[in-house]
Amino acid sequence: MSLSHGRSYLAIPGPSVIPDAVLRAMHRASPNIYEGELHDMTASLIPDLQMVARTTADVAIYIGNGHAAWEAALVNICAPGDLVLVCATGRFGHGWGEMAKGLGLEVEILEFGQQAPVDAARLEARLRADTDGRIKAVLACHVDTSTGVKSDVAAMRAALTASGHDALLMIDCIASLGCDDFRMDDWGVDVMVAACQKGLMTPAGISFVWFNARADARQPAQMSTYWNWRPRARPAQFYQYFCGTAPTHHLYGLRAALDLIKAEGLDAVFARHTVLARALWAAFEAWGAQGPLHLNVSDAAHRSHAVTSLCMAEGQADALRHWCEHTAGLTLGIGLGRQPESAYFRVGHMGHINAQMMMGALGTIQAGLMATGVAHGPGALDAAAAVIAAG
Amino acid sequence: MSLSHGRSYLAIPGPSVIPDAVLRAMHRASPNIYEGELHDMTASLIPDLQMVARTTADVAIYIGNGHAAWEAALVNICAPGDLVLVCATGRFGHGWGEMAKGLGLEVEILEFGQQAPVDAARLEARLRADTDGRIKAVLACHVDTSTGVKSDVAAMRAALTASGHDALLMIDCIASLGCDDFRMDDWGVDVMVAACQKGLMTPAGISFVWFNARADARQPAQMSTYWNWRPRARPAQFYQYFCGTAPTHHLYGLRAALDLIKAEGLDAVFARHTVLARALWAAFEAWGAQGPLHLNVSDAAHRSHAVTSLCMAEGQADALRHWCEHTAGLTLGIGLGRQPESAYFRVGHMGHINAQMMMGALGTIQAGLMATGVAHGPGALDAAAAVIAAG
Amino acid sequence: MSLSHGRSYLAIPGPSVIPDAVLRAMHRASPNIYEGELHDMTASLIPDLQMVARTTADVAIYIGNGHAAWEAALVNICAPGDLVLVCATGRFGHGWGEMAKGLGLEVEILEFGQQAPVDAARLEARLRADTDGRIKAVLACHVDTSTGVKSDVAAMRAALTASGHDALLMIDCIASLGCDDFRMDDWGVDVMVAACQKGLMTPAGISFVWFNARADARQPAQMSTYWNWRPRARPAQFYQYFCGTAPTHHLYGLRAALDLIKAEGLDAVFARHTVLARALWAAFEAWGAQGPLHLNVSDAAHRSHAVTSLCMAEGQADALRHWCEHTAGLTLGIGLGRQPESAYFRVGHMGHINAQMMMGALGTIQAGLMATGVAHGPGALDAAAAVIAAG
Amino acid sequence: MSLSHGRSYLAIPGPSVIPDAVLRAMHRASPNIYEGELHDMTASLIPDLQMVARTTADVAIYIGNGHAAWEAALVNICAPGDLVLVCATGRFGHGWGEMAKGLGLEVEILEFGQQAPVDAARLEARLRADTDGRIKAVLACHVDTSTGVKSDVAAMRAALTASGHDALLMIDCIASLGCDDFRMDDWGVDVMVAACQKGLMTPAGISFVWFNARADARQPAQMSTYWNWRPRARPAQFYQYFCGTAPTHHLYGLRAALDLIKAEGLDAVFARHTVLARALWAAFEAWGAQGPLHLNVSDAAHRSHAVTSLCMAEGQADALRHWCEHTAGLTLGIGLGRQPESAYFRVGHMGHINAQMMMGALGTIQAGLMATGVAHGPGALDAAAAVIAAG
Repeated sequence: MSLSHGRSYLAIPGPSVIPDAVLRAMHRASPNIYEGELHDMTASLIPDLQMVARTTADVAIYIGNGHAAWEAALVNICAPGDLVLVCATGRFGHGWGEMAKGLGLEVEILEFGQQAPVDAARLEARLRADTDGRIKAVLACHVDTSTGVKSDVAAMRAALTASGHDALLMIDCIASLGCDDFRMDDWGVDVMVAACQKGLMTPAGISFVWFNARADARQPAQMSTYWNWRPRARPAQFYQYFCGTAPTHHLYGLRAALDLIKAEGLDAVFARHTVLARALWAAFEAWGAQGPLHLNVSDAAHRSHAVTSLCMAEGQADALRHWCEHTAGLTLGIGLGRQPESAYFRVGHMGHINAQMMMGALGTIQAGLMATGVAHGPGALDAAAAVIAAG
Repeated sequence: MSLSHGRSYLAIPGPSVIPDAVLRAMHRASPNIYEGELHDMTASLIPDLQMVARTTADVAIYIGNGHAAWEAALVNICAPGDLVLVCATGRFGHGWGEMAKGLGLEVEILEFGQQAPVDAARLEARLRADTDGRIKAVLACHVDTSTGVKSDVAAMRAALTASGHDALLMIDCIASLGCDDFRMDDWGVDVMVAACQKGLMTPAGISFVWFNARADARQPAQMSTYWNWRPRARPAQFYQYFCGTAPTHHLYGLRAALDLIKAEGLDAVFARHTVLARALWAAFEAWGAQGPLHLNVSDAAHRSHAVTSLCMAEGQADALRHWCEHTAGLTLGIGLGRQPESAYFRVGHMGHINAQMMMGALGTIQAGLMATGVAHGPGALDAAAAVIAAG
Repeated sequence: MSLSHGRSYLAIPGPSVIPDAVLRAMHRASPNIYEGELHDMTASLIPDLQMVARTTADVAIYIGNGHAAWEAALVNICAPGDLVLVCATGRFGHGWGEMAKGLGLEVEILEFGQQAPVDAARLEARLRADTDGRIKAVLACHVDTSTGVKSDVAAMRAALTASGHDALLMIDCIASLGCDDFRMDDWGVDVMVAACQKGLMTPAGISFVWFNARADARQPAQMSTYWNWRPRARPAQFYQYFCGTAPTHHLYGLRAALDLIKAEGLDAVFARHTVLARALWAAFEAWGAQGPLHLNVSDAAHRSHAVTSLCMAEGQADALRHWCEHTAGLTLGIGLGRQPESAYFRVGHMGHINAQMMMGALGTIQAGLMATGVAHGPGALDAAAAVIAAG
Repeated sequence: MSLSHGRSYLAIPGPSVIPDAVLRAMHRASPNIYEGELHDMTASLIPDLQMVARTTADVAIYIGNGHAAWEAALVNICAPGDLVLVCATGRFGHGWGEMAKGLGLEVEILEFGQQAPVDAARLEARLRADTDGRIKAVLACHVDTSTGVKSDVAAMRAALTASGHDALLMIDCIASLGCDDFRMDDWGVDVMVAACQKGLMTPAGISFVWFNARADARQPAQMSTYWNWRPRARPAQFYQYFCGTAPTHHLYGLRAALDLIKAEGLDAVFARHTVLARALWAAFEAWGAQGPLHLNVSDAAHRSHAVTSLCMAEGQADALRHWCEHTAGLTLGIGLGRQPESAYFRVGHMGHINAQMMMGALGTIQAGLMATGVAHGPGALDAAAAVIAAG
């Protein structure tokens, strides 16, 4: 007998839960790609993608995952031999750096560990030291999916300004877009990358690069036709949006997802994520008051509203995850990039998530802690419920 | 801002949550209804419908809801003027009686209130008093959906046997089939009715009547061709299954649902419902330890594993339901047939339900009690989690 | 090797091809049945169901097939022993009569064969002969699905009027509604029955009875609560629409189907069916100019725009149907109710059908006639194409 | 009034008609991407992708369209400055060359026009002239989607062999894979690229590169991590299949599509495409016997079984296309890359296509020629039907 037979809940930090409206929109015949409603619908996505990033910058859509967007962003502003500075707060910052190396770029890492955000002062100091202006771009994750650390992007821009350095500021919002408030224009971000399968609630398969005029001006003269963001952002002909055949069904899905965001209102979306994240933290703080379980990021100001990383003793996280999935129908995320991995797990709480889902995830973890024999403090679920009740 | 934007959870006592596999099976073109795979697939449903009722009796499928099955069952064994005895444990027992009256039957009610099961001794006494054998059938709900009261069907059969009365025993398993263990043959049930939208996890639209040879022998000579269960149960031609066009998409959906039950195993299905029901009771007992909230049925032995009825003070249940639906994404059932209705609500926990769903429902109710200011005892969610952890 | 692997085309006279929009609308969770959008949506169906029947009469929705609507219509206006007069133009007229017999009614058949419409003069003569007014209702199919014969309903009303008889006029539009123009009010129809799986393009499972005040006044004092059309048509509470649980998913599907009809415009829907039917007739007339194949109804004025019955030599129709289905992906209808059945087949051209589908069906039949060695005249496909080209 | 209201038929040369089984497989929640059934299912795709290409070579899956596969294939075997020789038989050969230029490669075009296949003798002569072995790869389309020209790939390999040149042979099978027989190993192809939205019947969004050991040995030391085909083809960890998040829903769709191909049998799939293409040619040859309409490729041996290009007088093709789409529900492909474009159109007959669909397309074109007043020869549809009848 298993108590898992029912509607499964995938609470990993992406892919996230897909709304029925999105799946329904994707259940259709392929459209004419040469003319007609596909063209109008695709054009309608652009202002809404700008809206979720709070920007007037251009945006290019790529058929691909987040790594594709990383590659695209780099190819459009660097040439082999260029130096980029990666501010790393987890596995994915390093990952972007590895992609840069593959492109022949020189990569320098500013390491901030796995529990702390980018320290703008260190960034500023490094930029000031780059007296010959070798650094072409500063790369950082708004939220690193592997750690749940959220950094202060406006402070990074301030560091660039204070240092007088003209490197581009490139931000990865793959985990955070549509969950943690992000203000591309206000915060002076030049390039931002994201993907569709997290806060944008669409099956994995398309990703995005937003870029402002300052970034566009850095484009190398010789570059890949495929990755070139210019025709994608401002196509003369429809096929240029995607350098070839459009990802038709993903576009329909994304259209439905953006309609949901617009209907709710972006501010309301952020407010919902904030309350639900606070409920989750309240539960984990209560559990952690006794026993090994603790939140990876101690300062709530640096925690994401989309993904939370937790630490236990070796083996405990794996045991908890397996119990939750196989006995209760809840799938939690692995401790990606942490050592020992079996001591870590992550909860995704991004996108199409409401109060009853959050209470279901937390209630299942409560049962899982009991079932797997992990010591924990009392009152976690009541604490979470109190946050939700207060709204 | 609302915390309800996410996957909604419909926790009313039917329709229940539909598995994705069922919806996918229904998303298809209509089949040829004259020959081919529809015929084989339909025939394959019969042994599985017998399996879930633990019977070798015949079963007729009706396009209709539970009320249609009520009507069909009565039409096949009674003629106008016949007397039927209804053992009522809630609104739906009375409802079946009202349908009988519409058919010109004489209806006598044995009333057991809304919090207690059928008392077999009272039934036996009434049968013994029917010395001229006027009672043609005894009607009762295994579980009355409006109250969550579960009655002992084997005891009813024992009462019939003890009294020496040959009335048919007709049981409504609309709320219970596939959730609460039911044994048609072992318990000596002659006719059983159910519908697809509860434990059978299929969108509302088809219902069923199982009938044994003893019941079939009572069929009136003159009766409706449409309702006649004989050609439906043993069709010479395919169209006779449904007296006309088959409900094609519901059959595909039901096929998928029965496949899920078979894959899990019927005993495992019942064991799952049992644990989840006990988790729910544990929570409500804890809440009810202080304040107005209490379970409708005090003796756990008489509570359904599929639906639970709760009582609070006037207005409180409505306020709680509205908060849960509009703020948290959880829809609870109304206090159907109770006075004042606004003091009652029901939770459906039937069919496609797992531990994380149950914890989500209970966690939401916890938050709702806080938000709507209903006094309640502590420790409810931990108590539920403990039941689930123990498995 | 088979040439059938591709999108199948079900061209039987119902169920018909279901639009993707309908299937998408049905691919969803069950709604709250006690309050909210389901209630508003259901109410919105009524005026649109009146619109397609061109009536202001009431309409009751039944979970059921066409036979259920037959039963419902009879139960609401007759009592056992009443006499009804069936004007039969095919198998389904007789079928309705058989249902009436099951209800204990006396049934008299006015037989018009399988290739001719109702002869209003014969009807009038019979009514005049009923000097003691025993006939309670005149039953007829607007189009009999088994023969494709379309009768003149206005002429039937004229016969009733001329005879001074006050029997109700009850019409079966199961095959024709939404395909062949039907005007309930203008034509003086008292009761009309239809189902959802033909011109209304929804998976089989719900059916309808429209009834005017004159018919309603005939309702027996004692009647089935389940079939009673009054609470269904004018419910005081939502559950009365369906005497119990609503067929939720069918309602969503029907809503989508009616939206398609409204977007196209009912007159445009009829005009489309007219042209496509004329294209089909043109092809069959050409094929029939040489060889055994001929249209069942010789006078185009009496042919349905929704279904066409064809005759060949014994065995030929079965061979053609099998070739079309297994080699080409086209399913044709059997020769239901004809002798020998293997000499007859039917083509459904109802509902969601356009010019390319019609040309696909006809082109496949052309190939099938060649493959199965049936002699046929030339130019059939060009003739059909010419009709379509002329629009 | 329009005759287009019904099931639309998208007969463009990709995206093609998607089987319901594929769409159903994609209508689901996202899976756990870290472990479980997604991993096994993804691994199961590889041998089937090898099967459709008749190869034992490795295959890498890319989230992307055909252009992405072009880029990927080039990046894995060339470095900036390398020379590639493009054998062009239409727009897409040139397109691949343009992508190569964007990567900094030197591109030389061997132009074969838009109506003829690659001339192996000219290829051999050019290779013999490359005495210093500058040509790194020979690029050609098996079928160029813009012209429908099919080239003899085995003859190209023979030219390479005869010339003693060791350039790689890289073939684009985007239009042809799964439609026109292709034998990667027998024909000595080193690299092959394809995409999912044509013969593989899956919504646009993933593409593929097959590569043999000889090609792999040419991989540059420094290359993009994202495009690197090695970890994708032989991943040590699951995420390496896709260099990041998997395109989950496309994988489920592709799995369903490959299951359809396996169930039918690849040889049967090719035989079906062959007969249907011959039916289409028969119709166009008949129409072209009088009037302006003619097949782009005069020799049937060089025509694709997946896409056919047609020529008429200026403006006629556009008029025909518009009539077919807006009046009849059939969408034809534009005359991509031809001048004047309005004189050309294309028919896609790839993937999920059967006899009734082909007859529907041809019958609609017949009506369209009549409606738009294009002179044409008689007997086209009968000729097509005869081919299909002969099987």
